[in-house]
Amino acid sequence: MAKAKPITLHGKPVAGGAMPVICTPLVGGTREALLAEIAAVLPKQPDVVEWRADYFAELGDTQAVIDTGRALKAACGSLPILFTRRAAGEGGQNASLSEPRVVQLYEAVCAARCVDLIDYELSQPGDAFERLRAASRQHDIALVGSYHNFHATPSRDAIVAKFRDAQSRGADVGKVAVMPASPDDVLTLLAATHEASAALEIPLISMSMGGYGSVSRMIGGVFGSALTFAVGKSSSAPGQIPIEELRAVLSTVRRSVGNA
Amino acid sequence: MAKAKPITLHGKPVAGGAMPVICTPLVGGTREALLAEIAAVLPKQPDVVEWRADYFAELGDTQAVIDTGRALKAACGSLPILFTRRAAGEGGQNASLSEPRVVQLYEAVCAARCVDLIDYELSQPGDAFERLRAASRQHDIALVGSYHNFHATPSRDAIVAKFRDAQSRGADVGKVAVMPASPDDVLTLLAATHEASAALEIPLISMSMGGYGSVSRMIGGVFGSALTFAVGKSSSAPGQIPIEELRAVLSTVRRSVGNA
Repeated sequence: MAKAKPITLHGKPVAGGAMPVICTPLVGGTREALLAEIAAVLPKQPDVVEWRADYFAELGDTQAVIDTGRALKAACGSLPILFTRRAAGEGGQNASLSEPRVVQLYEAVCAARCVDLIDYELSQPGDAFERLRAASRQHDIALVGSYHNFHATPSRDAIVAKFRDAQSRGADVGKVAVMPASPDDVLTLLAATHEASAALEIPLISMSMGGYGSVSRMIGGVFGSALTFAVGKSSSAPGQIPIEELRAVLSTVRRSVGNA
Repeated sequence: MAKAKPITLHGKPVAGGAMPVICTPLVGGTREALLAEIAAVLPKQPDVVEWRADYFAELGDTQAVIDTGRALKAACGSLPILFTRRAAGEGGQNASLSEPRVVQLYEAVCAARCVDLIDYELSQPGDAFERLRAASRQHDIALVGSYHNFHATPSRDAIVAKFRDAQSRGADVGKVAVMPASPDDVLTLLAATHEASAALEIPLISMSMGGYGSVSRMIGGVFGSALTFAVGKSSSAPGQIPIEELRAVLSTVRRSVGNA
């Protein structure tokens, strides 16, 4: 829809450039749970899967993470995998690992090339983001620079600034997820996404979370969001919609926006 | 959804207070065409049907209009009928009748009680709107005070002012339909609807038209729009979605906004 930019991996647009693509989170706590989850999710044909590794019990065991990543990669075939350790301060689960060790883990995952994209928070201090930019580029892995706020929706300008920060720090994709206190906050997120989409070169992902925000998961593509998260087996954030339902809505949105 | 106010008829909310209700336009040019159209539309179970009488070839023949209205009423049973002669300057079809004769026609339709609501433009000069307010009230028929702009989307304040005008002139429902030039204009319409919905007492109907605007037909209920138009057999404005598709989307929106 419109001039939104699709996410590209290895030089090609994901899912042929569909706007938006659908990403399903995996939240299993063990290798067995994750393999059962991916088996349940694959028939639902997401365009991307996100391994939310902060749910993984053995996050501190780099070899266990890589082995599980390789098993997921084997199960997924050409379906791209986004690797995410969401920090506790931005809505993540497992805060036991120190940030330097998290960065080392990401570097090892990049070197193993068992995933296609990684997501890392723009808010992390020091040179962590820059190190992961280097590691991901070296191994042809895309980097999502992300910002999450589970408490509020910042101003339109502040949201646009987050997207700009992602681009200026070399991210391949900028992501902003925020919590609305009212329907107006959903409009703020959509307006900021549309403004940033017109101003920036990189593809963007955005969503307003929770109940009101769920509509942004349906129509965000019209405003420049290149990816929307949908529930395959389990939700990873408030407001996510089951993939079958979201796909039907996106089909109606695409046809209506394109036709009229 | 939220605090949006449902449309009430004869003291009861339409469709049990569903937000929004679905209205399907009838655009047949003859009595026979209209009866065939309503027969095709009824199985699709709209909550309201709008007879767009400006498409009716015999608009100048009051008795033909009333006879056809009665035939539609008999076919519709308890399904409410909205009677609309859309003026040519606001997107209507048949401009052959002088406005004083249009007002007389509306008065005769109210007296015949063959419809449940009438729609009349707020922009009409003189005391026409006030006359139809009196006639509709006398016969327990609801009055929609409407504004349509097929060329542009006015400012947020200007849209709110249209809704305020509808309320201050005694309309039972305020309606604004505008054309977006960009996705941002769709957000303006939704923001204005939400603001007016919080500030005013009467239920509101709003939509952004055309391609981008079609998303407002799906999520407008979250922002206070009490009714959305969907195609039963034929479209009456750009961006309308087939009723089956729209109903499925509304079901997902309701569940997602309500659940999360």
